[in-house]
Amino acid sequence: MPSFHSFLYAFDLFGTAVFAMTGLLTATRHKMDLFGCFILALVTAIGGGTLRDMMLGATPIFWLEDTLYFWVILSTLLCCVLLSQRYSIAIKYLPHADAIGLAVFAVLGTNKALEMGCSPAIATFMGMLSGIGGGMIRDVFCQQIPYIFKQEIYATAAMIGGVLYSMLFILQVDTHISMLLAVAATLGIRLGAIQWHWTLPSLASRIQTH
Amino acid sequence: MPSFHSFLYAFDLFGTAVFAMTGLLTATRHKMDLFGCFILALVTAIGGGTLRDMMLGATPIFWLEDTLYFWVILSTLLCCVLLSQRYSIAIKYLPHADAIGLAVFAVLGTNKALEMGCSPAIATFMGMLSGIGGGMIRDVFCQQIPYIFKQEIYATAAMIGGVLYSMLFILQVDTHISMLLAVAATLGIRLGAIQWHWTLPSLASRIQTH
Amino acid sequence: MPSFHSFLYAFDLFGTAVFAMTGLLTATRHKMDLFGCFILALVTAIGGGTLRDMMLGATPIFWLEDTLYFWVILSTLLCCVLLSQRYSIAIKYLPHADAIGLAVFAVLGTNKALEMGCSPAIATFMGMLSGIGGGMIRDVFCQQIPYIFKQEIYATAAMIGGVLYSMLFILQVDTHISMLLAVAATLGIRLGAIQWHWTLPSLASRIQTH
Repeated sequence: MPSFHSFLYAFDLFGTAVFAMTGLLTATRHKMDLFGCFILALVTAIGGGTLRDMMLGATPIFWLEDTLYFWVILSTLLCCVLLSQRYSIAIKYLPHADAIGLAVFAVLGTNKALEMGCSPAIATFMGMLSGIGGGMIRDVFCQQIPYIFKQEIYATAAMIGGVLYSMLFILQVDTHISMLLAVAATLGIRLGAIQWHWTLPSLASRIQTH
Repeated sequence: MPSFHSFLYAFDLFGTAVFAMTGLLTATRHKMDLFGCFILALVTAIGGGTLRDMMLGATPIFWLEDTLYFWVILSTLLCCVLLSQRYSIAIKYLPHADAIGLAVFAVLGTNKALEMGCSPAIATFMGMLSGIGGGMIRDVFCQQIPYIFKQEIYATAAMIGGVLYSMLFILQVDTHISMLLAVAATLGIRLGAIQWHWTLPSLASRIQTH
Repeated sequence: MPSFHSFLYAFDLFGTAVFAMTGLLTATRHKMDLFGCFILALVTAIGGGTLRDMMLGATPIFWLEDTLYFWVILSTLLCCVLLSQRYSIAIKYLPHADAIGLAVFAVLGTNKALEMGCSPAIATFMGMLSGIGGGMIRDVFCQQIPYIFKQEIYATAAMIGGVLYSMLFILQVDTHISMLLAVAATLGIRLGAIQWHWTLPSLASRIQTH
């Protein structure tokens, strides 16, 4: 029977694959070549965790210790190229799959920072960064203002998951239960935001900039 | 009586708050949502020091050790949102307040690198990066060529402050006096540049690029 | 008689100078001021190796240990400004000189990662990053989609050099011979790509993005 840890690990790899696919799609839209697609897939999938680990000083970075992440991304790219005709149907559900990656990355990132002794506020930020960092770098490379800064609730979902997990961590709730609850909360909020187009208010009307 | 160290620390936090405000303003101008404003404020305020610490290998990074920076940024954001009507008057003086942040960050950054054993040239560069790094990342996120590359003398002021501080450090002048002199020099040059629109020459006319 | 090591080191510094020149040229095209030119030259020349070292946790970063890189970049900038009239002829051959930098950086980067115990796949990626990272950051600062994502074969040449070097490393071939072979392969492919406009296929026609 697979353990809880390997269950989480599988979700982590699934999130990696899905994030790689969103990077690949963005690259394709911008008519990048095969190599640009690979780099963008890579950056989207592991960029957030890389930023987190570099800031935490958690060297070696996670994908240096465990090269499986690397091969998952390469395989994803290969599958997408080979099965491109068939999988174009799957693109419709990419935002929903992406929500799973966001939720898992945010909670695992928060957990990693807490275990390294960070305060809850910092840990929540690190979790959020794990979830959204890759997409941010992807959008900067593609000359877009990161869409998570303007779109439906995305990072906020990751933040709520991180806050919830930090609280349960302080209350010393069982790790398995805490993770499941925090992932479920993040996932629920993000899926709700996709379904009903929840957005955050903009400050543009409140603050006079000129 | 507050010590010299706590005096500098207060200026450092003041610089952090001011940099957060410039990030917030830029985010508002680009019609980002509340979350985008928070990230941009954060990135502007701590981005330079983070880059410096990651390059120096000075882990844990300063705002992981001392979460007060984090709370200063959150409070600044909150104040700006709540008092937005009243504070729009203050925006006019933001470049002048920003100059204080630049000067303090540049000199403290140079000092940190020198204390870690860097050569004066590298330390000056690290100080400059502390001062301008946040603004550079902010502008990249907002799809602008970093304005410090084109505008009135900005980074040059930080560089002169860093060079001056490095020289005084080598001459073993008292730290308090060195810091005050270097901060004053940076601040004076930057305020002068704002007032009289000092600019650096462009190389565009000298080098034929086609 | 100079040793093989100092021979490589000389090429490494040559690559640094050439990369600094491409950064300077890009900055000039975008009408940046003298300071912007300096930063862009610096970022282009040492950005790739810096990213590699930060990810590997190889602190202090190479140009902190050996400030010669720093002075090479400053001198290059100075020479270009002083001799700008005469050197505009040299610009025509910049892509060819740039190919030398790419080849040397890629192979040395791969070697550094292998010596630190990375797997061949990761080491190849680190070598590629050493070669292309600086140009990527340069283009992001200048508001261009990194041209290596769309242009003639560039990173692919670095990747092939890295794969070749990794293979020879595993086969325990003499380091000198491995390096020469891998640098020659990278250089040959890149020069061929410049000469005959070799490109990678785009995926845009295969994957339906809407």
